[in-house]
Amino acid sequence: MSQYPVDHAGLEILPFGKCLELLAAVPVGRISFFADGEIVTLPVNHVLDGQDPVFRTARGSKLSTAQSQNLVAFEADQYDEKTRSGWSVLVTGRAQPVYEEDEISRLSRLGLRPWVAAGDRSFWIRIRPTSISGRKTPSAADGTRAAG
Amino acid sequence: MSQYPVDHAGLEILPFGKCLELLAAVPVGRISFFADGEIVTLPVNHVLDGQDPVFRTARGSKLSTAQSQNLVAFEADQYDEKTRSGWSVLVTGRAQPVYEEDEISRLSRLGLRPWVAAGDRSFWIRIRPTSISGRKTPSAADGTRAAG
Repeated sequence: MSQYPVDHAGLEILPFGKCLELLAAVPVGRISFFADGEIVTLPVNHVLDGQDPVFRTARGSKLSTAQSQNLVAFEADQYDEKTRSGWSVLVTGRAQPVYEEDEISRLSRLGLRPWVAAGDRSFWIRIRPTSISGRKTPSAADGTRAAG
Repeated sequence: MSQYPVDHAGLEILPFGKCLELLAAVPVGRISFFADGEIVTLPVNHVLDGQDPVFRTARGSKLSTAQSQNLVAFEADQYDEKTRSGWSVLVTGRAQPVYEEDEISRLSRLGLRPWVAAGDRSFWIRIRPTSISGRKTPSAADGTRAAG
């Protein structure tokens, strides 16, 4: 039996609270946005501030996207190749840069530690979600997982 | 010393051949596309056919995107939380459904095994790249990795 309701593709639909919990549990997510007529998807080190994924960036396409308050998607997932199982959470919303000093010092205490030393990785970006949804592969118990 | 040239954000730029090798080495990538006025990013089980990521899907938004030959991004990555290192490869291009019987039986022999049993996960989608690029965190040897 599935732990959660199942969608048309056979994936279990994660409840909202579980989505937030999973987003907060991984150190890397992927931001997708439009740049120069193409969709770009790039990994970032993030933390969760309430329901908002936040991350730091150097000057570049991610900052430009945020400055224009553009549409973005933020995705996090985790999978286990051995058990052929996994989950993913998708946040859609708008990116915005964080400029307020107080806000920046508050965010700085959330434990974000970017993996790459870039002297100018000094801009904070917040994603304001308009929707958060998640899926997981069917629970092992229902025996439908490893299909051809 | 870095193994590869470094970009403005401090990441090493992976050569083209290495990007293809890495894309082929992981069982899961993420496709991003536009649907209903939002950017959607979803994981898929893929294989590489030459330079083209291919995957299977049920009827739904990924199929619709391919039927319209829409712009997509395909991203794969891998990271190690302990060493705070990783790589990512980004493919931008257009998705297209594969309908030809011969082509489908050829693709069927590439070893793709979707993780989720959906009876109707019967459509093959090919991504025709217009660009393929990749980055990795700086090599351990140069000592700049674990930054605050």
